[in-house]
Amino acid sequence: MTEDELRVLTANEAFYDAFSARDGERMDALWARATAVTCLHPGWSALVGRGPVMESWRAILGSPGSPRLEATGARAFVVGEAAWVLCYEGPRGGPAMLVATNVFVREGGEWKIAHHQAGQVAVPPEPEPPEGSN
Amino acid sequence: MTEDELRVLTANEAFYDAFSARDGERMDALWARATAVTCLHPGWSALVGRGPVMESWRAILGSPGSPRLEATGARAFVVGEAAWVLCYEGPRGGPAMLVATNVFVREGGEWKIAHHQAGQVAVPPEPEPPEGSN
Repeated sequence: MTEDELRVLTANEAFYDAFSARDGERMDALWARATAVTCLHPGWSALVGRGPVMESWRAILGSPGSPRLEATGARAFVVGEAAWVLCYEGPRGGPAMLVATNVFVREGGEWKIAHHQAGQVAVPPEPEPPEGSN
Repeated sequence: MTEDELRVLTANEAFYDAFSARDGERMDALWARATAVTCLHPGWSALVGRGPVMESWRAILGSPGSPRLEATGARAFVVGEAAWVLCYEGPRGGPAMLVATNVFVREGGEWKIAHHQAGQVAVPPEPEPPEGSN
């Protein structure tokens, strides 16, 4: 794994940590400022711009029923100053319920999230079986 | 709109044209080669790598029931050599059924698709009403 991939995965972890902590201030700090930000929450219309995206996070994180999610199976793909991460999302210790695309951009040397889409998983991920096993 | 945004939107259109034409060869040519490619089809597990992603397109486009989709409300966001597009997907002339993230990367001067995620829309998009109307 490259250093950038590792940094992007660390930024991805920070996103789920802020989500699980229902910490709107930390969430706000993780999102890009120089780039347009966008968000596709499951069952919402497309959100474009920092205003609508941050308003959505305040609504979601302000709800006592918002899930405490963890990301599993995260993979990072870096192209210059941008990157995307695929990961599964699920309750801590529970099965993955959603699969997500998170786009990151490098701003002032730091990887910031610029886009998030999460959607239903029909087939939960399974660990790869060792070769030759049934 | 910048020239790059326009080019990315044109590449996005080409993706939906190949999809609707069920043209596996055109679809293959639209995907990146120098970058890892990934795909999150609704209800599938995460696909990583050109082999699994192209296999999924052959299966989808080879099915006579595969939808003839068009993209509506597409918006492009360019960051250096990468970009992402948000758009709604639906049958030609029909209501949007899905909302998608498509990631593009510039390879040899051409924008190639590197990631696609589509997920359900709960609230179909509506045209913005003119100001002052009810």
